[in-house]
Amino acid sequence: MGVRSVEEYTAHVAELLSPLLSPPPVRVDLSDALGRVLAEDVHSPVDLPLFRNSQMDGYAVDAASVAAAPVTLPVLGVLAAGPAAPARHTPGTALRIMTGAALPEGADAIVPVEDTAGDHRSVTVHRAREAGEFVRERGSDVRAGMLLLSSGNRLEPRHLAVLAAVGLGAVVVRRRPRVAVITTGAELVDAGTTPKPGQIFDSNGLALASGARANGADVVVVQRSSDDPGVFRALLARAVSAADLVLTSGGVSMGDFEVVKDVLAPLGGQFGHIAMQPGGPQGATVVDGVPVLSFPGNPVSTLVSFEMFARPHLRAAAGLPATEHYTLPLAGPLRSPQGKRQFLRGRVAGDAVELVSGPGSHLVAAMAWADVLIDVPADVTALDTGELVKVVPL
Amino acid sequence: MGVRSVEEYTAHVAELLSPLLSPPPVRVDLSDALGRVLAEDVHSPVDLPLFRNSQMDGYAVDAASVAAAPVTLPVLGVLAAGPAAPARHTPGTALRIMTGAALPEGADAIVPVEDTAGDHRSVTVHRAREAGEFVRERGSDVRAGMLLLSSGNRLEPRHLAVLAAVGLGAVVVRRRPRVAVITTGAELVDAGTTPKPGQIFDSNGLALASGARANGADVVVVQRSSDDPGVFRALLARAVSAADLVLTSGGVSMGDFEVVKDVLAPLGGQFGHIAMQPGGPQGATVVDGVPVLSFPGNPVSTLVSFEMFARPHLRAAAGLPATEHYTLPLAGPLRSPQGKRQFLRGRVAGDAVELVSGPGSHLVAAMAWADVLIDVPADVTALDTGELVKVVPL
Repeated sequence: MGVRSVEEYTAHVAELLSPLLSPPPVRVDLSDALGRVLAEDVHSPVDLPLFRNSQMDGYAVDAASVAAAPVTLPVLGVLAAGPAAPARHTPGTALRIMTGAALPEGADAIVPVEDTAGDHRSVTVHRAREAGEFVRERGSDVRAGMLLLSSGNRLEPRHLAVLAAVGLGAVVVRRRPRVAVITTGAELVDAGTTPKPGQIFDSNGLALASGARANGADVVVVQRSSDDPGVFRALLARAVSAADLVLTSGGVSMGDFEVVKDVLAPLGGQFGHIAMQPGGPQGATVVDGVPVLSFPGNPVSTLVSFEMFARPHLRAAAGLPATEHYTLPLAGPLRSPQGKRQFLRGRVAGDAVELVSGPGSHLVAAMAWADVLIDVPADVTALDTGELVKVVPL
Repeated sequence: MGVRSVEEYTAHVAELLSPLLSPPPVRVDLSDALGRVLAEDVHSPVDLPLFRNSQMDGYAVDAASVAAAPVTLPVLGVLAAGPAAPARHTPGTALRIMTGAALPEGADAIVPVEDTAGDHRSVTVHRAREAGEFVRERGSDVRAGMLLLSSGNRLEPRHLAVLAAVGLGAVVVRRRPRVAVITTGAELVDAGTTPKPGQIFDSNGLALASGARANGADVVVVQRSSDDPGVFRALLARAVSAADLVLTSGGVSMGDFEVVKDVLAPLGGQFGHIAMQPGGPQGATVVDGVPVLSFPGNPVSTLVSFEMFARPHLRAAAGLPATEHYTLPLAGPLRSPQGKRQFLRGRVAGDAVELVSGPGSHLVAAMAWADVLIDVPADVTALDTGELVKVVPL
C-alpha cells in the first residue's frame, strides 16, 4: 500500500475494527457484572420498597391515637425485620417495630424510640406524629416498570446495588472484545528462562495482552510463532476462531523472513509503511471476518502501535471513556524528521512535558518511564522550549 | 462514643486502618502483575540489548570496505534473528542480516537494504556508512544493575514490557488488601430468588464486595448473617482469619436486635452516631488485630459509608491515586439539617451540579443515577443556586 499518512491509516483501521463496537449481548450474574456495559435498558420488575415499612426503630401507631401526646399506649408485641405474616394494628395501642419491618395493617406512623419511654408492656409517646411520618411507602423509591439504567451504562458498584435491590440476579451486557495475540520471531524466548546466543526475551506478548486487558478486553489466547509460515498459519487459524481482534507483532518489514506479511499479504492484507516513528511498518488484514492488526516487532514500536491503532477501539468497545489528548508546553527543545509524524516518549514534569529518550525505537526502558507520548506532526522538524505540543496519556 | 463529628471519626478510622498501608510483599508471575504495586526497586539483571545487533534489514559490513561507495561486495551468507552461533565478518565482504540478528564479529556497520542492489551472491552498496550506523550496541538501552522501576510503581503494560524485556519472569509486589464482607439482617434474601413477605433483596453484599474490588482489594469472603449473635460470631471469626479488613452492614442502630453492635461492643467496639447524613450510625472495632468497620444497613447509607470510610484507605493500600474532590456551583438551591454534615446524591450537568434526590437514605435508585456526592458542611442549612459546593466523585 506504499507510504500512508497516520490519518489515512487510522481511518482504515477504524473501519476494519468497527464491528467491535456492536458486540453480541451476553447474560452474566450480577456478581460478575462489575465494569461491564449494559446491552439493554433495565426496568424495575418490582416496587421498591417492596412493602410499606418502618424507617426507624420505634413504635407503630395510628396518628390519631398519639395526637394528644404525651399519651401512654399498651404495647401488644414486637415486629422485627424479616420474614413474617402481615400483622394488624389495633387503634389506641402500639407495636414495637424495627427499621425495615412491615408496617402492621391499620398503623400509619412510626414514633422513633428516641421520642418515647417505656418497656415491653406499655410506651409513653412524648410528641404527636402525622400520618406517614417515618413510614417508607411501597414504591416510593422505585415503581415497577420504571427505567433504572440505560443500555450503554458501565456498571459501577452503585449500579449493581440498585440492580440487586430490585432482585435482578443477572443482567444482559455487551460481550467484551475478545483479543488474540501472536508474537513472531525465532529469536524470542520467555522471560524467566535462559536465552541462547542470538535470542532475546519476548516482551510483546505480555505488552499486548496486558494492554488489551487494561483496556477492557478479554484476552483469549497469547501465542508465539516461529518464522515458519505453516506454524504461523496454524496459530492464526486458532486465533481468528476465538477472537474478535487479532494483534500480531513482528514479521512485517523488509527482511527475508517476514512471516506475518508473507502469510497475510496473499490473503488481502495491506502491508506498508505509515509516515510515523516509531511504528512505521504496519499491516491490516481481515481473516475469516476477523480483523488482524500487524504491528512491527520492536517492543517500543509495538507499544506505540497498540496505543495508536488498538487502544482507542478497545476502549470504545468496552464502554470505557476515550483517553483525552491535551496540550502542554515543552520543557526543552526537540527535533523531528521531516515527513514523519513522531511519537516521542515524554514525562509530565510540573506544567510542562520533557523528553525521556531519543527517538530510538528500541528504548523500552524509556517507554516504561514515560507517562505520555508527545505527538509531533509530520511537517514539524524542530520545536523550542515552551512551544505547545499535543500529548497522549499512556 | 456518643455523637462524633465526621472529622473525628475519619481520623479514628484512618488510625485503625493504617496497617493496610504496609502489606507484606508477595511474588507474582509477570503475567499476573498488571495493576499490582511494586514492593521493591527493580534493577536490571542484564544489559539490553543483550548483544550487539542489527537495527535494520540489510547487510553487515565494515565501514572501511564501503567508504568508496558505490562498491560491490561478495555476500558470504545470511544472518537471521534467532538462536545461532556467533558469525565472523571478513573485511571486503558482506553478510545479509536481518533486524535483531547478532552482528558478526569484525563488522561495525549495517547498510540498510534500501541503499543496496544485489542478490544472494553479491551486493552493490550505494552509499558509505560510518562505524556504528544502524548498530544497536549491547547495553545501549539498559545497563545491567540499572534501576528500572522503583518500589511503589503501579505496573502498567509498558512497565511489564520492560520487566519482560530484561527477562524477569516474576516480580515482588504489595499484597492486595484482603477484604471480607458480612451483611446482616433476617430480612435479606439473594437477588434472583423470591422473597417471602417481610423479606427484601440484599444489595449491600454486592455493593461492598464490588466497591472493594473496584478499588484494588481482593474480596476473600462475602457472608450474610442472621440476627443470631452465635451465627454472626462464627462468620466474624472466619472473616478476621482471612482478611485485613472486615466490612459489615446493618445491626448498628437503636433496635432490639442489633447483632453487630451486640457482638462487637463487648469486644471494645466503638458504636455511636456520627454527625452525618446518610450513614449516621457507625461502629469500629479491632478483632484479633483486624479492623472491622460496621456500616448501617440501609443501602444508600452503606454506599456512602464505604465512600467515606473505606474507599480512600483501600485505594491508598492498592497504590491507586486518591479520588480528587473539587468544587462546583449548585444548579439549584438546597436545604440541609443544622449540625449534620450531609452527603447528597448529585449529578454533574454542564458546569454545575444538580441534586438527584432528597436526603432519604433509602433512595438507592437515586444513588445509582448520581455521579458525585455533594458534601454540605454541618453548620450549613441552606445554599442558593450558584453557590459553590464540594463534590466527591463516585
